[in-house]
Amino acid sequence: MAHQLIADQFLPIFSNPHLERMDDSAVLEMKGCRLAFTSDSYVVDPPFFPGGDIGRLAVCGTVNDLSMSGAKPLYLSLSLIIEEGFPLQELRTIIRSVQGAAREAEVLIVTGDTKVVEKGGADKIFLNTAGIGILQDKHISISGNNAQVGDQLILSGSIGDHGIAVISQREGFSLGGNIESDMAPLNRLVQDMLQASRKIHVLRDPTRGGLATTLNEIAAQSQVGIMVEESKIPVREPVQGACELLGLDPLYLANEGKLVAIVKREAASIILQAMKRNPLGKGAEIIGEVVEDPKGMVFLKTKIGGTRVVDMLIGEPLPRIC
Amino acid sequence: MAHQLIADQFLPIFSNPHLERMDDSAVLEMKGCRLAFTSDSYVVDPPFFPGGDIGRLAVCGTVNDLSMSGAKPLYLSLSLIIEEGFPLQELRTIIRSVQGAAREAEVLIVTGDTKVVEKGGADKIFLNTAGIGILQDKHISISGNNAQVGDQLILSGSIGDHGIAVISQREGFSLGGNIESDMAPLNRLVQDMLQASRKIHVLRDPTRGGLATTLNEIAAQSQVGIMVEESKIPVREPVQGACELLGLDPLYLANEGKLVAIVKREAASIILQAMKRNPLGKGAEIIGEVVEDPKGMVFLKTKIGGTRVVDMLIGEPLPRIC
Repeated sequence: MAHQLIADQFLPIFSNPHLERMDDSAVLEMKGCRLAFTSDSYVVDPPFFPGGDIGRLAVCGTVNDLSMSGAKPLYLSLSLIIEEGFPLQELRTIIRSVQGAAREAEVLIVTGDTKVVEKGGADKIFLNTAGIGILQDKHISISGNNAQVGDQLILSGSIGDHGIAVISQREGFSLGGNIESDMAPLNRLVQDMLQASRKIHVLRDPTRGGLATTLNEIAAQSQVGIMVEESKIPVREPVQGACELLGLDPLYLANEGKLVAIVKREAASIILQAMKRNPLGKGAEIIGEVVEDPKGMVFLKTKIGGTRVVDMLIGEPLPRIC
Repeated sequence: MAHQLIADQFLPIFSNPHLERMDDSAVLEMKGCRLAFTSDSYVVDPPFFPGGDIGRLAVCGTVNDLSMSGAKPLYLSLSLIIEEGFPLQELRTIIRSVQGAAREAEVLIVTGDTKVVEKGGADKIFLNTAGIGILQDKHISISGNNAQVGDQLILSGSIGDHGIAVISQREGFSLGGNIESDMAPLNRLVQDMLQASRKIHVLRDPTRGGLATTLNEIAAQSQVGIMVEESKIPVREPVQGACELLGLDPLYLANEGKLVAIVKREAASIILQAMKRNPLGKGAEIIGEVVEDPKGMVFLKTKIGGTRVVDMLIGEPLPRIC
């Protein structure tokens, strides 16, 4: 719905080449600097969940959006909308999480804003983080538009953990196994990959709508087909179990510490090796490739040998997941 | 309350020189560029009021925060949090206001985000705009820390219009006279002032908490006293009337198209003339000066010849004004 809203209502009004790229960050040329700029609001419900809270999520989300353009994230803003009566102790915990994640990602919180609204005017707490990063090299050109036929798809690790962690906390059921959000800042993983090879065409973090939505967006932006092998997609056993129990498909679940890279075929193996040396990429796998047709579509080779179309997410099975 | 929250809870945790300046924008050095960076959330209730809407407010507010560092605003992000069921027609109007104000201020909306929360999860619509501007000159150093004894205070026009426009709409009373929000992008006014003289020490737009709060912040940051002549502060007659009716003090009402400049005494007249040539500064007046003592305090010479302390705003008489 949000996707449709943006495409139908906003893009025609704002029409400019930065927005039309529809990437997670805008890349801006300013007096010889190349900057990446992004902003996201976080409304996750509940604000505390296994593996962390909305504060860590907001920093990781924005650091990752900047990283997906190949930029090195440097500076973040932090804006809070707080419902009157929100416990001060919880606010302090969230602020400490923001600072902890910022330190981990080596970014500074340099500006911000706080609004308090009356009880019932907002649900607990919303955060917004905007971020600025720098593209250190003129030759980096990473965008959802750049996928080319023959390119390999690399996924940095298992999917679905964030989605299941939030939904289990929200609904109050314990899912046995230890399922925690995978939230993590991916900037160093991306720098390691870029050091291994510049032949990275697309980077995306499959957050809201999951891997399926991200791949559909790339296929549409680049006007290519994408073929994925189901057996290559890592899903941890407790996440798979929870999905079966709840009738959810891990392909559509949000992740907050994973990325998909689409890279030139001959560079795939060296990039994969670089990823596996980073703790956040040790579960990386080549999961598929870019094909010529049918353009704009994603196909899954299933474990039982069939092939099925993986659609864009219709509706929203898990609202307020980030 | 928000001020106290920031000072007590956030600054000690994030401790870095950018935040500790407590200006409206952070000024960042990046590979030879000097950038200004800011972010604000807007929760004004109601989102439509005389003179415009939350969309125009969000653009003007962020353009103005950038301008108050002396920067030329260039790029904005736009993030929306929308309550489920918010009328699509109103959303479209807000988006068009955003684009209209962006065009007027000559900035581009380059990135953004949309979150929809369930009915009751947020009150109608909240916006966040972050912005990037460029400081075109190494010699610009404008900060709330820079007020110096003997400096003159210039106010760009009449105060209180935004506050009264929003409160009258919210409470549903008609106040006779035509009171509209003064929202406007002040970037060109600031550029005109800088062209007239570089001897500008402080720039601030007196938004939430009004002129009184802004002057108190500057007095505290610069460790100086500020003396203001009440008779020199322009208040439009219908705003004055509404204030008397409602028991409000215009000194504490929000403005969204006004600025206070603290400038070197010998440059005050040339800067004032430059301001008066711009439509947004035609009501500008020299309203007071910076004095040595008592440090951190603001005094008002009243119309009847007395002197009174102008305190920081305690509590919030008008919540959700921006």
